[in-house]
Amino acid sequence: MSHGKQFTLYSHVFGTNGWKVAFVLNELGLTYETIYLDFNNKEQKAPGHVKYNPNGRIPTLIDHGNNDLVVWESNAIIIYLVEKYDTSRKISAASENERITQLQWLFFQASGQGPYFGQAGWFKLFHHEKLPSALERYQKEIIRVLGVLESVLTKQEWLVSGKYTIADLSFVVWNNMAVKLFVADFNGFNFEKDFPAVYKWHNAILSREAVAKALAVREALLASD
Amino acid sequence: MSHGKQFTLYSHVFGTNGWKVAFVLNELGLTYETIYLDFNNKEQKAPGHVKYNPNGRIPTLIDHGNNDLVVWESNAIIIYLVEKYDTSRKISAASENERITQLQWLFFQASGQGPYFGQAGWFKLFHHEKLPSALERYQKEIIRVLGVLESVLTKQEWLVSGKYTIADLSFVVWNNMAVKLFVADFNGFNFEKDFPAVYKWHNAILSREAVAKALAVREALLASD
Repeated sequence: MSHGKQFTLYSHVFGTNGWKVAFVLNELGLTYETIYLDFNNKEQKAPGHVKYNPNGRIPTLIDHGNNDLVVWESNAIIIYLVEKYDTSRKISAASENERITQLQWLFFQASGQGPYFGQAGWFKLFHHEKLPSALERYQKEIIRVLGVLESVLTKQEWLVSGKYTIADLSFVVWNNMAVKLFVADFNGFNFEKDFPAVYKWHNAILSREAVAKALAVREALLASD
Repeated sequence: MSHGKQFTLYSHVFGTNGWKVAFVLNELGLTYETIYLDFNNKEQKAPGHVKYNPNGRIPTLIDHGNNDLVVWESNAIIIYLVEKYDTSRKISAASENERITQLQWLFFQASGQGPYFGQAGWFKLFHHEKLPSALERYQKEIIRVLGVLESVLTKQEWLVSGKYTIADLSFVVWNNMAVKLFVADFNGFNFEKDFPAVYKWHNAILSREAVAKALAVREALLASD
């Protein structure tokens, strides 16, 4: 590495999952250089990236402070970061059982939120053919997942350990995109009224300095694009 | 619990993710009682199950040997099981860095394989309207994911630690369903010829006694249905 920072993060400006890693690096005060790959030129599938990440997707993180260890899959990356660098448990669960509950929510985010919300986005914005019943399938799933979160967050402020952790943080970018772009016009959807506990939680996460700082970088990059 | 076994596993006969947990319980010689929920009667969404798992999906595991700790999300469950009960590392990675690589593959399985393979199954078998371009999207993704695995397994026998672990095991049920049901008739697909390293790895996992035993139970249950 020639940039002198501890980490290199391969990411994408519009994508969701790279920002999740930036939030955690910011929260922990770690130094990193971000390389934004150009998906139009398939840079994520090019040999220079695939040699690190055979899946050819972002994010990919290299830890120059740990023998250039490479980790991909955003939630594996953020667990790695807190296990190794969040020794004071600022944004992560501490006890053995709470770590498992944190892991459970991270798997729910990775398997139940991200891919399904992503399919809503695909059929709304990118698919070459209009397929209303496919789009509706995924819009309904967004509503269902928000309902699962609401059922828990009406009873507790945070998903685990009674405090803000990577479990909460992991949901924020896809939720943001979904409520603004994918279900804004769906069956009279009203985020604040329909899911008041999720709405409050979501805004509390967005107001974290580490999160707001990264999202401001994203806005600036999108504006200059 | 009145069944006298250490674990209660909420599962489903046809589903994929409950079997993954059964494989690990079998591998580790742990005792469990399986409750197969009837999805036709929405038992997975009923209060008796949702009180344990707000997502209303299977699998859900209760560990009666650990104060009835409840864990859901199949990959969170299997990580819990090996962290707590696979102290000899029979089927799990040992070193700190290898544990992260194991975690990375488990997130790839949970987010990149399961949901996308599941969508192929949905549009092939269950969607109320024929949508060939939606089905094709997910069939292509199955081929892509098998290609990612092939690119790695041509260079090494197992995904992590040079041995069979929960990372390998996690892929087997969806791969099995995909090659038999979702892409068998797709563009001249030939599993053994197109993906020889994955084919060999897949069959090695299927031949594990713990896996074969659980899948035999599944076959018997499906036959008696």
